[in-house]
Amino acid sequence: MERVVRLQLAYDGTGFHGWASQADRDIRTVEGVVCAELTRLLREEPRLSVAGRTDAGVHARGQVASFSTGSSIEPARIRAAINRRLAPEVVVGSARYAPDGFDARFSATARVYRYVVRMEDVPDPFRARFEWHRPGELSVHRMRAAARHLVGRHDFASFCRRPEGGRSTVRDLTRVTVHRDGGRVLFGFRADAFLHQMVRSLVGTLVAVGEGGADPGAIPGVLAAQDRAAAGPVAPPQGLTLERVIYGSMHGARPTPTL
Amino acid sequence: MERVVRLQLAYDGTGFHGWASQADRDIRTVEGVVCAELTRLLREEPRLSVAGRTDAGVHARGQVASFSTGSSIEPARIRAAINRRLAPEVVVGSARYAPDGFDARFSATARVYRYVVRMEDVPDPFRARFEWHRPGELSVHRMRAAARHLVGRHDFASFCRRPEGGRSTVRDLTRVTVHRDGGRVLFGFRADAFLHQMVRSLVGTLVAVGEGGADPGAIPGVLAAQDRAAAGPVAPPQGLTLERVIYGSMHGARPTPTL
Repeated sequence: MERVVRLQLAYDGTGFHGWASQADRDIRTVEGVVCAELTRLLREEPRLSVAGRTDAGVHARGQVASFSTGSSIEPARIRAAINRRLAPEVVVGSARYAPDGFDARFSATARVYRYVVRMEDVPDPFRARFEWHRPGELSVHRMRAAARHLVGRHDFASFCRRPEGGRSTVRDLTRVTVHRDGGRVLFGFRADAFLHQMVRSLVGTLVAVGEGGADPGAIPGVLAAQDRAAAGPVAPPQGLTLERVIYGSMHGARPTPTL
Repeated sequence: MERVVRLQLAYDGTGFHGWASQADRDIRTVEGVVCAELTRLLREEPRLSVAGRTDAGVHARGQVASFSTGSSIEPARIRAAINRRLAPEVVVGSARYAPDGFDARFSATARVYRYVVRMEDVPDPFRARFEWHRPGELSVHRMRAAARHLVGRHDFASFCRRPEGGRSTVRDLTRVTVHRDGGRVLFGFRADAFLHQMVRSLVGTLVAVGEGGADPGAIPGVLAAQDRAAAGPVAPPQGLTLERVIYGSMHGARPTPTL
């Protein structure tokens, strides 16, 4: 009998070329190392579905992946086996059976990302792997004003790499937060789903507003342009972390009976 | 004219064999990389004095080093040059002229160290470089009771590697704090000076008490034994950070006139 296993993962993305393996390239990916451990343990190669296909150098605290398996090996053993081999770079926080039909990607109703910019003169050796060090003051007030124009259901074509096959670039960005924490700015983004490089494009544009080079009132025009050149530069990957993935009540965080 | 330059440094000690260079061994040390940059810039090799000779794998947030130089190159340029080459692994937070006679090691009146133990089942990919991951609950109550016996002026021979030449192992440990922060325990230590591996020996012993294997009331006996075998094991280096160094009012934190 096939069952669906759901993994919650955290990883330091510094040493990975992102989540997704690429069939034609021999690169080190999070999917690749996790899949290799699963294959070793289950004696079959699972097909992983993932909530957030993080880019090279991007981190995750609450990534969710799922796969279907005929193996009777318990999720607790899967968790222990992966952690024994991959921690602390990749850590499985929980592994459990999910209801039939659960799919980490398609069942997710929202994703939450966080981005950290360090404004101080020098980087912090303890946080450098997880921050964009960009010396110079940014106006939180101006960035918040710009963020208000971004929230909502929009075509974000100006803020992403054009998807293959002319797929929709409309997304529902339900929340953008901008907070100052000492010499750092913490950005939070929540949407139903994100486009490729969307958070980093949003951050790059907000930072351009925050440093005074662009006006908060220019944002509606950038959205309307549907042209990547209208937005600010793409912020570097190391400041970005997938914080958590939200599932509807059908696939909520409740422990699932193991059938 | 010779002047004394004072550097405040932070570093991730993961990739270093500690602070101190060893004349007979070709190892990568913080002193070595900093000294190499200073030599390149000043065209003379300075002799560095340092407040805390951190061991291999130990970190620093507020390390202080000093050296005397005949060069007229300004401290601000020294700071910028080191950061350009060594950040974010090693970062100079400030560089300035210190009063005549200032010596980072001998002028210091106290050092403050911090040690972090993670008790949770799995490590945290974002903090693993700076924590000792030791799964299992520890009793903060018992560790605080043990810490009370450690505070004071004692012979800490049981908690260090025997120093060369029969030097004194008496130190004044003025403060030990133990706090719980979620699934972590944060230890704080302040003393006039610390012996080699002293903080890690104290932590190893406190953890042995916290897990129930040793009794808080046994600490006076451990101190009295003046025998390393009486104390607990030495905790691993990655959980340890030199947080700050305290100087008397003569060498305080006030900006120093540049003569």
